[in-house]
Amino acid sequence: MLRRRRAQAAAGQANVGGLLVTHAPDVRYLSGFTGSNGALAMAGARAVLFTDGRYTTQAKAEAKGLRVTISPKPATVAATEWLAEQGIKNCGFDSAQTTVAALTRMRSALPGNIRRSFFTAADGLIARLREVKDADEIARMRRAAKVGCSLFEVALRVIAPGIPEMEVAAQLELAARRAGADGMSFETIVASGKRSSLPHGRATAAKLPRQGFCTLDFGVVLAGYCSDMTRTVHVGKATPQQRDVYHLVLDAQVAAVAAVKPGATCGEVDEAARGVLRRARFGRKSLDKFFTHSTGHGVGLEIHEGPRVASKQTQVLEPGMVITIEPGVYIPEAFGIRIEDEVLVTPRGGDVLTAASSKTWIEL
Amino acid sequence: MLRRRRAQAAAGQANVGGLLVTHAPDVRYLSGFTGSNGALAMAGARAVLFTDGRYTTQAKAEAKGLRVTISPKPATVAATEWLAEQGIKNCGFDSAQTTVAALTRMRSALPGNIRRSFFTAADGLIARLREVKDADEIARMRRAAKVGCSLFEVALRVIAPGIPEMEVAAQLELAARRAGADGMSFETIVASGKRSSLPHGRATAAKLPRQGFCTLDFGVVLAGYCSDMTRTVHVGKATPQQRDVYHLVLDAQVAAVAAVKPGATCGEVDEAARGVLRRARFGRKSLDKFFTHSTGHGVGLEIHEGPRVASKQTQVLEPGMVITIEPGVYIPEAFGIRIEDEVLVTPRGGDVLTAASSKTWIEL
Repeated sequence: MLRRRRAQAAAGQANVGGLLVTHAPDVRYLSGFTGSNGALAMAGARAVLFTDGRYTTQAKAEAKGLRVTISPKPATVAATEWLAEQGIKNCGFDSAQTTVAALTRMRSALPGNIRRSFFTAADGLIARLREVKDADEIARMRRAAKVGCSLFEVALRVIAPGIPEMEVAAQLELAARRAGADGMSFETIVASGKRSSLPHGRATAAKLPRQGFCTLDFGVVLAGYCSDMTRTVHVGKATPQQRDVYHLVLDAQVAAVAAVKPGATCGEVDEAARGVLRRARFGRKSLDKFFTHSTGHGVGLEIHEGPRVASKQTQVLEPGMVITIEPGVYIPEAFGIRIEDEVLVTPRGGDVLTAASSKTWIEL
Repeated sequence: MLRRRRAQAAAGQANVGGLLVTHAPDVRYLSGFTGSNGALAMAGARAVLFTDGRYTTQAKAEAKGLRVTISPKPATVAATEWLAEQGIKNCGFDSAQTTVAALTRMRSALPGNIRRSFFTAADGLIARLREVKDADEIARMRRAAKVGCSLFEVALRVIAPGIPEMEVAAQLELAARRAGADGMSFETIVASGKRSSLPHGRATAAKLPRQGFCTLDFGVVLAGYCSDMTRTVHVGKATPQQRDVYHLVLDAQVAAVAAVKPGATCGEVDEAARGVLRRARFGRKSLDKFFTHSTGHGVGLEIHEGPRVASKQTQVLEPGMVITIEPGVYIPEAFGIRIEDEVLVTPRGGDVLTAASSKTWIEL
């Protein structure tokens, strides 16, 4: 399997003889196994997936072309024992995905003479492979993004003064399931009125106001892959200032989307959005003072993955990466606006996967 | 706040001068803060919640009576710096909830002379406090369980041959939202026909068969607390063998529920279920050979927490604990049956929080 060969090559470059992969999305990426308790051990071209008795049938069905070992021991321990038997000298593990307790447990499964030296931190090897999506992944991400866009249409039909935020979320989520989603990629955000000034205002029982913004940030998981998009609409008639701020956020978002191309750094894309807001004013302050998070993040098997699209990030965009572009402005105790698309980096620029959903000003 | 005073006492018993709490449910338990990036630092009676600019408004609203510090640094780093300034000699952290990379980052925020000695693994201090629910938590768990039971009624109205598993999940989830749930506590399991033999068969596009089992395992998150229950119904007419196995699983489940009382060990409760299945036969084998997981687990802010109700576990049940009792039997490539309740340990025995949902044989 090509992905495992690439992982093996990455291990070689990191100077480790073996790899122990335990982070579930990494295990899924390399093996196809979707269970919650799997450890993939790789020693050169040999690879074994370890899991427990709950997953006997599922692991064999999903991890095609791979040896599967069912063990009553923790999967990490069984995998460590196997790796030690393969005669490799050192084994990479992801220290950002492995708890201190798990590493202690893995080490105690090793013979005393190699216990201290065997495991070497080799962080992000699989995460970096996952940043660049292959054709199958891009097809899945397009489908997930398309379902995401269809949910925004559902929301537009539901949103009205007096409707609880939770009912909007409920209708989105019903439509997601009916479109074949495994579930939502994160807790649906429906933040209305003053609550729109909370960047992470999950849907509550609060009712949509007669006048005010409503920010919708949501995504589905479809065939394993996440979608992620945000739209902000206004319920009732907005003030000229609210419309102005909306259009400034939109300008910032469009500028950052336009900055997406192979060779651009993530910091440049972030700055494209941040610069627009910095040059605009809200009262006595620059508007970028109210943009309190980074511009975006990679998305794929996980809702948040590499690359990080944030200030001063030097990572360079490559074709096949999928990132979000989601600047926002949050005026405390007043209102907030965020607009987010998913963008695929193409050989020539960026392809907006969530383009089917309009970003123009909407008053409902 | 009583919970923080208890945490402080637990730190004292573990001989650590301070505590760095980073696991989100632990942070929420001790502070009320529900954001994704919080670190609670405690040094004696002093406590500070560290988070980032996305959560300024939310943290101040939720973490009442607690100092909140917004920092551009990782919350763990800002918290570590503060802890070092408090003059404590050593600080407990949860090695089962802290990655190797995070510990490295925390240590590098310390002055060189205390870098190696400052952090001490003090695992499960907060997790153990959380095992015994207080009155407010029990009230929330009762409400969550009640919503869970109402969903089973919805499922009974939806289930019919030809209905996709996903549609059943969709209707459950819509009803959950309308009942005020923040979301589901885990990916809804609707496993029908042969798929019921998969203990973790998440809902797919597969249609319910004319004849076969349908296992529903689902839960909601309501006011932060999870519910968890499983019912297995039969679509169409079952064989006598299928009915027999159902009733054996039910006998096992009822026996384990009856074994719940203060002073009983988790292993005894597990054995109450396992023993019933061991004494029954399926073909040439004991039926317990097809019971491939443990009997249950604690539930609360997390869907899986302590105590573990599994074979040979010596932990003793205490009033206020809430555990699941969920034996199951899975005949590969044929069918599976699981029945699960949530049980509160009371001073005299067990109180089934999910009792509103019938466990008697149902053919639809």
